[in-house]
Amino acid sequence: MKFSVTILGNNSAIPANGRHPTSQVVTLNDQLFLIDCGEGTQMQMNRYKIKRSKINHIFISHLHGDHYFGLIGLLNSIGLQNRTTPLHIFAPAPLEEIIQIQLKCANTHLPFELHFHPLYSGQNGILLKEKGIEISTFPTTHRIDCFGFIFKEKHEERRILPKEVEKYQIPYTFYKNLKMGEDYIDATGNHIPNEKLTAPPGKEYTYAFCADTKYEESIIPYIKGVDMIYHETTYLEDNREKAEARFHSTAIQAAQIAKEAKVKKLLVGHFSSRYYDLEPFAQEAQTIFSNALVSHEGATYLIKNG
Amino acid sequence: MKFSVTILGNNSAIPANGRHPTSQVVTLNDQLFLIDCGEGTQMQMNRYKIKRSKINHIFISHLHGDHYFGLIGLLNSIGLQNRTTPLHIFAPAPLEEIIQIQLKCANTHLPFELHFHPLYSGQNGILLKEKGIEISTFPTTHRIDCFGFIFKEKHEERRILPKEVEKYQIPYTFYKNLKMGEDYIDATGNHIPNEKLTAPPGKEYTYAFCADTKYEESIIPYIKGVDMIYHETTYLEDNREKAEARFHSTAIQAAQIAKEAKVKKLLVGHFSSRYYDLEPFAQEAQTIFSNALVSHEGATYLIKNG
Repeated sequence: MKFSVTILGNNSAIPANGRHPTSQVVTLNDQLFLIDCGEGTQMQMNRYKIKRSKINHIFISHLHGDHYFGLIGLLNSIGLQNRTTPLHIFAPAPLEEIIQIQLKCANTHLPFELHFHPLYSGQNGILLKEKGIEISTFPTTHRIDCFGFIFKEKHEERRILPKEVEKYQIPYTFYKNLKMGEDYIDATGNHIPNEKLTAPPGKEYTYAFCADTKYEESIIPYIKGVDMIYHETTYLEDNREKAEARFHSTAIQAAQIAKEAKVKKLLVGHFSSRYYDLEPFAQEAQTIFSNALVSHEGATYLIKNG
Repeated sequence: MKFSVTILGNNSAIPANGRHPTSQVVTLNDQLFLIDCGEGTQMQMNRYKIKRSKINHIFISHLHGDHYFGLIGLLNSIGLQNRTTPLHIFAPAPLEEIIQIQLKCANTHLPFELHFHPLYSGQNGILLKEKGIEISTFPTTHRIDCFGFIFKEKHEERRILPKEVEKYQIPYTFYKNLKMGEDYIDATGNHIPNEKLTAPPGKEYTYAFCADTKYEESIIPYIKGVDMIYHETTYLEDNREKAEARFHSTAIQAAQIAKEAKVKKLLVGHFSSRYYDLEPFAQEAQTIFSNALVSHEGATYLIKNG
């Protein structure tokens, strides 16, 4: 199954240099998950051909406007397009009132069910669990309550070994039981242990969106060893003091977190509008952690290859 | 003085076909006035080099999202850019709470004074009067409270006739009195009437933004004889029933209003996303009112020539 993230916006607070505020789309098991929804996200979706009908879950990290000002417009548009599938929003609790007051003033009645799942200060743990997918949250350290999100492939079933099941002539109808770990007993009473017929479930790939955060090692246990993290790098080292004062990170700091957490790949974003050229973000990060990439709007980054 | 309108967004509710939700900038006497502020307006301002520092007044016609979802993002950005000049917003009363709740959730304190001037159901009359400018409002007929805005040049002073003041050797220091309509009495007691030395104030050009509205002749008294109106044409005649059901207008209906109100020029906009090609809007409108133009994003339309 495909597992990737497409960047719709990689800039920090003020849209500039052709870049947009934060938004990205995670593709996992044929579903799309929207993370953050800065102003203009619905236009960016048009531009990069993101199918809104495939989005059933939206995750908002925090209530600074560059992470959610585009949400009400997106809800409005998909309502006008007569969506009927329920939509789930996971976001800091006060966002519900902000949405409701705007719908009320416009006398708008959405034609789909909107399920709001409030996130509360310091919350961590699983938000969503369904076939093949587990999504959890963790708190980051920013000027207001802020949440990161972890997207994990889940493989519950063992993998059938084709040559072995052929060799032992296991009937096709028993495959489902094999996947669940059952042993096979043939007509003559022969006991064939499951381990001979199947391999353990495959590797479960993981992606972590680390939201806005200052350099903070307390997030490391949550993101330990994941395949890719997206970590903010609002500033380069030339503005480390500014980064600290505003509870943001530099490229070096993001790389230190990636290194400490032993992740496989670091994708950086949330660039201050003061920077036109993004290449120095990769250069600085790579001095600490070699597998660091600068995110670009419109680009899709594979979390799992193939 | 320059008097013009620049279109930042000319589409109706759903952004599509590269078009944006409603926003436009009126330039008058070296000031910029923003009318409506749909999602993405601040990006459109970047694109078309609109100087935000010159905007001191924002007018919001109504609380359907395609007319104001970009406002909070704009306020946020100009706050981050350390604006200190006060900003005035004229808008339906409930917008104030929508703005305040969003600032509060982000723990944002704007560095400039925000003066909110609420508009109430059915309100009409002057909103702002300052040197050379008068701005008023009138109610339109839409699904929720909605307001049009009229921008008028004001010339309080009579115009000096250069040849006459030279002929009568009027001292330069008296010009200000002449402009105010005073007669001149020279050292020998000769009385020279003001009418010999000055002409009446020049023509006062006027622009009317007619907001979202169904075909409704009650707006005619407000916009009678103005130099340019911007009237919505969400639909063509092929969707007249839809227009009526949704309290919108067709191109023909906008042209009928322009004709009845004897305005000089009609600029049409607020196009439904179902239409890719805009030329038919001009064609249909021109069957009723020849001086009808389709608005295009990024284009500036002169209300006063020269």
